[in-house]
Amino acid sequence: MQNFYFDTSSQSLTVHTNGWDFTYPKMSNSGDHKATTTPHIVKEEILAAGKWVKLEKTTYVDPAGNTRIWESVKRTTRQRDTEADGVGIIALLKRTLHKDCVVMVKQFRPPLGCCSLEFPAGLIDEGENAEAAALRELKEETGYKGEVVGITPVTCLDPGLSNCTTQMVMVNINGDDMENINPTQQLEFVEVILLPLDEFQLKIDELLRKEKTVVDAKVYIFAMGMVQAFFKPRELPVLKQ
Amino acid sequence: MQNFYFDTSSQSLTVHTNGWDFTYPKMSNSGDHKATTTPHIVKEEILAAGKWVKLEKTTYVDPAGNTRIWESVKRTTRQRDTEADGVGIIALLKRTLHKDCVVMVKQFRPPLGCCSLEFPAGLIDEGENAEAAALRELKEETGYKGEVVGITPVTCLDPGLSNCTTQMVMVNINGDDMENINPTQQLEFVEVILLPLDEFQLKIDELLRKEKTVVDAKVYIFAMGMVQAFFKPRELPVLKQ
Repeated sequence: MQNFYFDTSSQSLTVHTNGWDFTYPKMSNSGDHKATTTPHIVKEEILAAGKWVKLEKTTYVDPAGNTRIWESVKRTTRQRDTEADGVGIIALLKRTLHKDCVVMVKQFRPPLGCCSLEFPAGLIDEGENAEAAALRELKEETGYKGEVVGITPVTCLDPGLSNCTTQMVMVNINGDDMENINPTQQLEFVEVILLPLDEFQLKIDELLRKEKTVVDAKVYIFAMGMVQAFFKPRELPVLKQ
Repeated sequence: MQNFYFDTSSQSLTVHTNGWDFTYPKMSNSGDHKATTTPHIVKEEILAAGKWVKLEKTTYVDPAGNTRIWESVKRTTRQRDTEADGVGIIALLKRTLHKDCVVMVKQFRPPLGCCSLEFPAGLIDEGENAEAAALRELKEETGYKGEVVGITPVTCLDPGLSNCTTQMVMVNINGDDMENINPTQQLEFVEVILLPLDEFQLKIDELLRKEKTVVDAKVYIFAMGMVQAFFKPRELPVLKQ
């Protein structure tokens, strides 16, 4: 494992290999630690296993060749034929004479001890692909029938803690369709909230001020992306004055 | 806990209360389950505790008043004076005559058994606030010294599994500053990768095709937000033809 590409002639080095052109910063490390080994897992021992979740003691070899221990969480439910545990659904409800809205769910989450504001989401069932799981979960949690228009790669949720992964599935909902005018929800205790896309972050901020609810990180980052205020160059703080 | 607001006269009902104007869809539930109880935790029993992570059996009362069990993961390291376990840093490196780049880290993650591509991140130390933790972690992991320009609310990472939370901190880095021209990294085995903001998703996709790496969900959603292609109305699939 090569840590850095050094370059003494310029501030940074752009590597052009097989279509890549990532830029690696010119860096020096404070310690003398050369990465000589491909890191890998040696063994995984179960410390405790519930019905849904297990805690493991992971023994691995780090890039310097040292054997180390990590505490890892895994779901017991992952299907063999899929790489992702679950799906999250970014569903856009489109209706005549209405603003486009993002379909959100609010529910009590026992690990948090309070409610969360999330994209609809759920685990992938056996034999199911991510797209099918997304449409099923969206229907169960919100009653809406949608159409898949995009999907992300398999993504990790908290990789320092768990191996849990999700694929985000982008779904359009035709809100003018009869079946979506009176959506029939199949799950209990999931509150459906429609937030207009053009005020998504603002509406989330209002909701968080109003009640004890924790917003999912993916939701908030998506909301920031929709605003993009941070990245409008003319609104960035001037670095030099 | 009120699940839905019903409205027989229109497709949806917009609620105006104390400055709110969220839209609740008109819905019917397939079962007969009324939410009559404020859901709450009854007890939390430790099934197993490592040095860093513990697995708990959570007994809670659901909105119908039924007592139920959930398996919850928690970090043992959360500081008492903070609501978030950690911080993630969206750091933008700004340099004269260079494209603005997002500072990313790639590292072997034992729970995954492979490398992840993430925003720099880390746990908040005792007595530290999120902004200070962000600048410290950014410096340790990448060598860069930045300036905080924004921070999110406390957000949850995988609320069906754990109580783990993070605050995303937006940081600008003046890459023309001497200390940021030769950044001195303090952590081992974290590979720093600079990805141009204007091609962020494209570069991530290239990297994922090239090697066995899992991208963090927050990163990929941020990347999608930067593209916004999905939400450019004229590029959306036409719903009715």
